[in-house]
Amino acid sequence: MVNTFGTIQFKEMPSIASTGVVVGPMEKDSPFAASFDEILPLENEKDETYEQANTRFIEKACAVTIQKGHEQMENIDVFIGGDLINQLSPTNFAARQLAIPFLGVFSACASSMESIILGSLLLESGNAKSILAGASSHHPTVERQFRYPLEYGGQKPGTAQWTVTAAGFALLQKHAKNAPIITHATIGRVIDGGQKNPLHMGAAMAPAARDTIERHLKNTNSRMADYDLIMTGDLGKIGLSILKEMFQDEDSGVILQDAGAQFYGEDSFFNAGASGAGCSAAVFFSHIYKQLKNGVFNRVLLVATGALLSPLTFQQGETIPCIAHAIECRMEKRG
Amino acid sequence: MVNTFGTIQFKEMPSIASTGVVVGPMEKDSPFAASFDEILPLENEKDETYEQANTRFIEKACAVTIQKGHEQMENIDVFIGGDLINQLSPTNFAARQLAIPFLGVFSACASSMESIILGSLLLESGNAKSILAGASSHHPTVERQFRYPLEYGGQKPGTAQWTVTAAGFALLQKHAKNAPIITHATIGRVIDGGQKNPLHMGAAMAPAARDTIERHLKNTNSRMADYDLIMTGDLGKIGLSILKEMFQDEDSGVILQDAGAQFYGEDSFFNAGASGAGCSAAVFFSHIYKQLKNGVFNRVLLVATGALLSPLTFQQGETIPCIAHAIECRMEKRG
Repeated sequence: MVNTFGTIQFKEMPSIASTGVVVGPMEKDSPFAASFDEILPLENEKDETYEQANTRFIEKACAVTIQKGHEQMENIDVFIGGDLINQLSPTNFAARQLAIPFLGVFSACASSMESIILGSLLLESGNAKSILAGASSHHPTVERQFRYPLEYGGQKPGTAQWTVTAAGFALLQKHAKNAPIITHATIGRVIDGGQKNPLHMGAAMAPAARDTIERHLKNTNSRMADYDLIMTGDLGKIGLSILKEMFQDEDSGVILQDAGAQFYGEDSFFNAGASGAGCSAAVFFSHIYKQLKNGVFNRVLLVATGALLSPLTFQQGETIPCIAHAIECRMEKRG
Repeated sequence: MVNTFGTIQFKEMPSIASTGVVVGPMEKDSPFAASFDEILPLENEKDETYEQANTRFIEKACAVTIQKGHEQMENIDVFIGGDLINQLSPTNFAARQLAIPFLGVFSACASSMESIILGSLLLESGNAKSILAGASSHHPTVERQFRYPLEYGGQKPGTAQWTVTAAGFALLQKHAKNAPIITHATIGRVIDGGQKNPLHMGAAMAPAARDTIERHLKNTNSRMADYDLIMTGDLGKIGLSILKEMFQDEDSGVILQDAGAQFYGEDSFFNAGASGAGCSAAVFFSHIYKQLKNGVFNRVLLVATGALLSPLTFQQGETIPCIAHAIECRMEKRG
């Protein structure tokens, strides 16, 4: 199927054979915690840089994913991933260790879904049997690079979000009846609503989420009510309320949710909620994946959202361009 | 075809319908200059940041590519690109302007070929008719981020390479008889030879180039002598000589060349030659593309090479992980 509006229809409908999600210690009180695979220390006792810690999370999430999928690393055809650190250093170093063909992607916090889309295309083409795809973020590493080192003790406004420490990966394989499958994807466009405040990213990203959801619904000839869940990545509580207003004519009700808004529950310490490339990856590949696998959900749209700003473009007075990539997952009803 | 060693066989063999290459003023004396489309000023007369200048190069190269392909931007399904700047800011801002679905990639100076591989997969899947894919680099922007602002007047050793100011893009469309086609690609693995010197990247990248070329030849059951040209991206003069030593048992002769080694001719001002994501993009999409189109070459292997270091990982004492992505292009002989 050819579609000029960025929506891909996967004829082979690859399956998500297994997933692996590892998080940091701050994430253990998340409402989603029961679905996470492991909690790792933020820093190792050994001499470890923050970037190396981020790499350790990626490697562990990949190992868990492979193990749960009863696979061996040498059977994985391609590793696809991204993170928030300049030049994708943590993912590059993990790829060096994995030693399999690697594709680095960057869509900021939407990188998880870009990875899944590309992995599905590789499977669809018949050129691969097993793909390992996902994304990660590591709180102190991201804060030091984009804002301030944590040791500065900077204060944040209520619109700010807390970068999740998590790595979430998925093993993609050919279509299977007993696993969630990927039927469609919509590639994001870069949308800029003119926002300039890097401590209010939900407001910046909401228009990109809207654009992708609208295009996906239109291109698949669907309505919101056709889905059990449409979940964005990390708009946070405020961003989600903005998005809900944008869709007020639709019967969005409880269908439209946000991983970042729910990630840390109602604890006001985390301000408007969670963010980070690991946020959507952790929730989609743990709780949502299990709900699909258990048949609680039959059809969901997962929309990872990314703010494509840099500390430099902010200083240069630029607005914040954003993007959102979506995948549609289904679980066949059991007979 | 399924292949566990990272080589993709494109059944549909998409074509490179047109290309666009714009370069900066330092590049006008390149032996390849006659094949470049336009020479743009490094900075605009208007108030423009370096990052905005990089964006301007990307936008111009895309516009030229579309124009030469007799296409309209609204007919392009997906834009795929990458650059060397943190968070891919120049490419993100270009994507905002183009307003079509966008996939950001990062393989450092190998990003051009990662873009082409993903674009070919999208075409292969039948989900797209026209893809715009490529990469860019802008000398002063890259130097300020990775090394020092040019105004510092830093000296460099003879092993150093000069970051090219160039943006090179290609319009990928379905198989056509009168245009170069993409038959195979090999996705790179992250290879780290233990090099630590960021001013001797050719030595760091040569093992990654070797790995990709060896896998490609093995997986396609080919020998070097089967190609009219195997050209790496930006190993430079020294890196190329290292690579040639690695292949001394093969009859590499004049077949094995490097875009960066030839880019600035024999001018010692440029030390070991050219580098940058725009280096391979500019040469592959201008001179090499024309040689294919004119039937001078019938079968070439283009191997973009990338050093995945960051200023931070260098400071942290890490070695330089590298990657190389390859595409095989052919031009059907005319009857």
